[in-house]
Amino acid sequence: MGFKASGVACGLKASGKPDVGLLVCDVPAVVAGSFTQNNVKAAPVQISREHIKSGIARGVVVNSGNANACTGERGLKDAEKMAQLAAIPLGISTPDILVASTGIIGRFLDMEKVADGINRAVAKLAADEPAGMDFLSAIMTTDTTYKQSYREFDVSGHTIRIAGVAKGSGMICPNMATMLSFITTDAKISASDLRVQLAQAVSRSFNRITVDGEMSTNDTVLLFASGMAWQEPLGSAWQSEFGENLYEVCNELALAIVADGEGATKVFHVMVTGAKSFTQAHKLARAIAQSLLVKTAIHGGDPNWGRIISAAGAASVPFNPLHATCSIGNIVVFKDGLGTEANLKRLEEIMKQKDIWITLDLGDGEASDVVHSCDLSKGYVDINAFYHT
Amino acid sequence: MGFKASGVACGLKASGKPDVGLLVCDVPAVVAGSFTQNNVKAAPVQISREHIKSGIARGVVVNSGNANACTGERGLKDAEKMAQLAAIPLGISTPDILVASTGIIGRFLDMEKVADGINRAVAKLAADEPAGMDFLSAIMTTDTTYKQSYREFDVSGHTIRIAGVAKGSGMICPNMATMLSFITTDAKISASDLRVQLAQAVSRSFNRITVDGEMSTNDTVLLFASGMAWQEPLGSAWQSEFGENLYEVCNELALAIVADGEGATKVFHVMVTGAKSFTQAHKLARAIAQSLLVKTAIHGGDPNWGRIISAAGAASVPFNPLHATCSIGNIVVFKDGLGTEANLKRLEEIMKQKDIWITLDLGDGEASDVVHSCDLSKGYVDINAFYHT
Repeated sequence: MGFKASGVACGLKASGKPDVGLLVCDVPAVVAGSFTQNNVKAAPVQISREHIKSGIARGVVVNSGNANACTGERGLKDAEKMAQLAAIPLGISTPDILVASTGIIGRFLDMEKVADGINRAVAKLAADEPAGMDFLSAIMTTDTTYKQSYREFDVSGHTIRIAGVAKGSGMICPNMATMLSFITTDAKISASDLRVQLAQAVSRSFNRITVDGEMSTNDTVLLFASGMAWQEPLGSAWQSEFGENLYEVCNELALAIVADGEGATKVFHVMVTGAKSFTQAHKLARAIAQSLLVKTAIHGGDPNWGRIISAAGAASVPFNPLHATCSIGNIVVFKDGLGTEANLKRLEEIMKQKDIWITLDLGDGEASDVVHSCDLSKGYVDINAFYHT
Repeated sequence: MGFKASGVACGLKASGKPDVGLLVCDVPAVVAGSFTQNNVKAAPVQISREHIKSGIARGVVVNSGNANACTGERGLKDAEKMAQLAAIPLGISTPDILVASTGIIGRFLDMEKVADGINRAVAKLAADEPAGMDFLSAIMTTDTTYKQSYREFDVSGHTIRIAGVAKGSGMICPNMATMLSFITTDAKISASDLRVQLAQAVSRSFNRITVDGEMSTNDTVLLFASGMAWQEPLGSAWQSEFGENLYEVCNELALAIVADGEGATKVFHVMVTGAKSFTQAHKLARAIAQSLLVKTAIHGGDPNWGRIISAAGAASVPFNPLHATCSIGNIVVFKDGLGTEANLKRLEEIMKQKDIWITLDLGDGEASDVVHSCDLSKGYVDINAFYHT
């Protein structure tokens, strides 16, 4: 595919686990990115947004253990320096390296450690000792699972590959549920097409998950395309299949993040159908998926549809409850403004499962959307209350 | 003041505690109300919104243990019947009685029990055995404290009294954090003036608290004015003092609700100042006050200002972090886009307190707002996850 990755431990993480990672393409890659909408953007996000404007990059340098956020001018210089430290020994220009960080907010990076880490990560690549799992370890924080996804498909005798990794969502040592994802492909595609493909895939995957409703200062998704799958132009018909496969990679990573949400013991999905507009469907699905009373009911296995209807009612988008039908699994629990005579035993069995679907049909249109979430357990409080900065 | 109240147990609550309450004015009272903005409104809310239109009422009948929400036509009939059951023996017309309910969603009321309860509550009033505390008990659910407030002040030799009770916010047996409040005064005031006074007081008090971001189907605040404090017109100059005292009553009740939030061990207040507009200040204060990461940091006593800045940044209203100053208690923790060299020991002492102020000055204008909240503990998960309908 034309990519190499490595990861080393430089001492940013107290645990001594890998905390600096490097992902590099053998050739200049076409690149697209999606960054946090948080009004407070970490220094690496600001630097990467500049470096990515050309649509071409050679790779990304990442650290965990420190978010380099709320660090002012010094933070920006440190992030730029990280790119430079990777670029110089690789013999490429600094703007061709993007930067991502995840970890505690408001602390300056220990650049001596970082420089040492980047040097050793470059040396590992140069010695042809690539280690994708080391890279993946280096971007992880409170993650308890390795999040990877891979798809390949054929177009006119060429195999196109898409491989992605992600971290999220939770950090004990640091402060928030930062989400990072790095995806590589060997497809040959223009920067503008790649941006559209990534935007579509992200809106259908990473933007449809919620753990605790928090959006970090550092969220970053980067997609690199080496163009090595073929040399000659292939038209653009293959791009719809590329889009579907890219979506599948992003969605698999997004669902892995939800399943590994801080303290999570269960995953649930809220599908809103029959809406007048996509926005209505999305806002209602998100309101239900983020409701603490719904999340605790899922945790306790309580088929408490009153909480679902009330959470939907409390959203800023109106709907007519008399037209709405709500189901848990395949059991209708609410219809015509009333609870149904649902089979309680069957409902309780569904609520005991680790993966639960809630469907709310508004009966008012054709639009729909889904949001994926996890339950709220005491583990979430443990992880987030009792870490001291 | 011209009001009587009573409360009895009729068996809606499994605990056998009072669950039907009656508050009645000796004369037709001027009345104003504030009801849930939830798109799904419980039957008693729908009935009370009709009955209150005249601006005159004699009282309110309340039950706990069952919200009479998502109960369709039958629920509306039951709520109307509750008003009638109280009105007939009192010799007044049904539309002069308002109705409020709190408890589980989606179950029909056991009207036999309710009728028995209302009959006995009326008999208690008639026997001149008023019992304000029984009324207060009858509106409570998972409340662990009695929430009352009282103010009086003099105008031209007349004493005006304002007395309020509230319940909230949490229910084990039922499904959500319903807030009910009933306030009485002997002021002589028009219905239109009373509505304005209540709207202003509610917007500054009950609308500025958050426990878990949930808005119930049943939230109701009612304010009755008997007009017994004086007979002759007093002009309207006294109304600004009335407004301040009414606000104080509402705010004391609202803060009592937050302090008794489900699982709460601490209260915190988020003040946003220096905003361009009230809306900007309110939305940022609410975003911080509702953030699970901020609520868990408060719980754990962690002076984690990065979570505060990130929660503000994630709100839908932009601000310039370089102009912003954030303080915890009287310690500045963030300024000019950077963390300060704050006295960590002093900060940790502040974070150990039971009542914590967070201030975010945006440095961009003159508007401000405050939102009151409580911490998120394992107790919240216990209360809300492990009750089974």
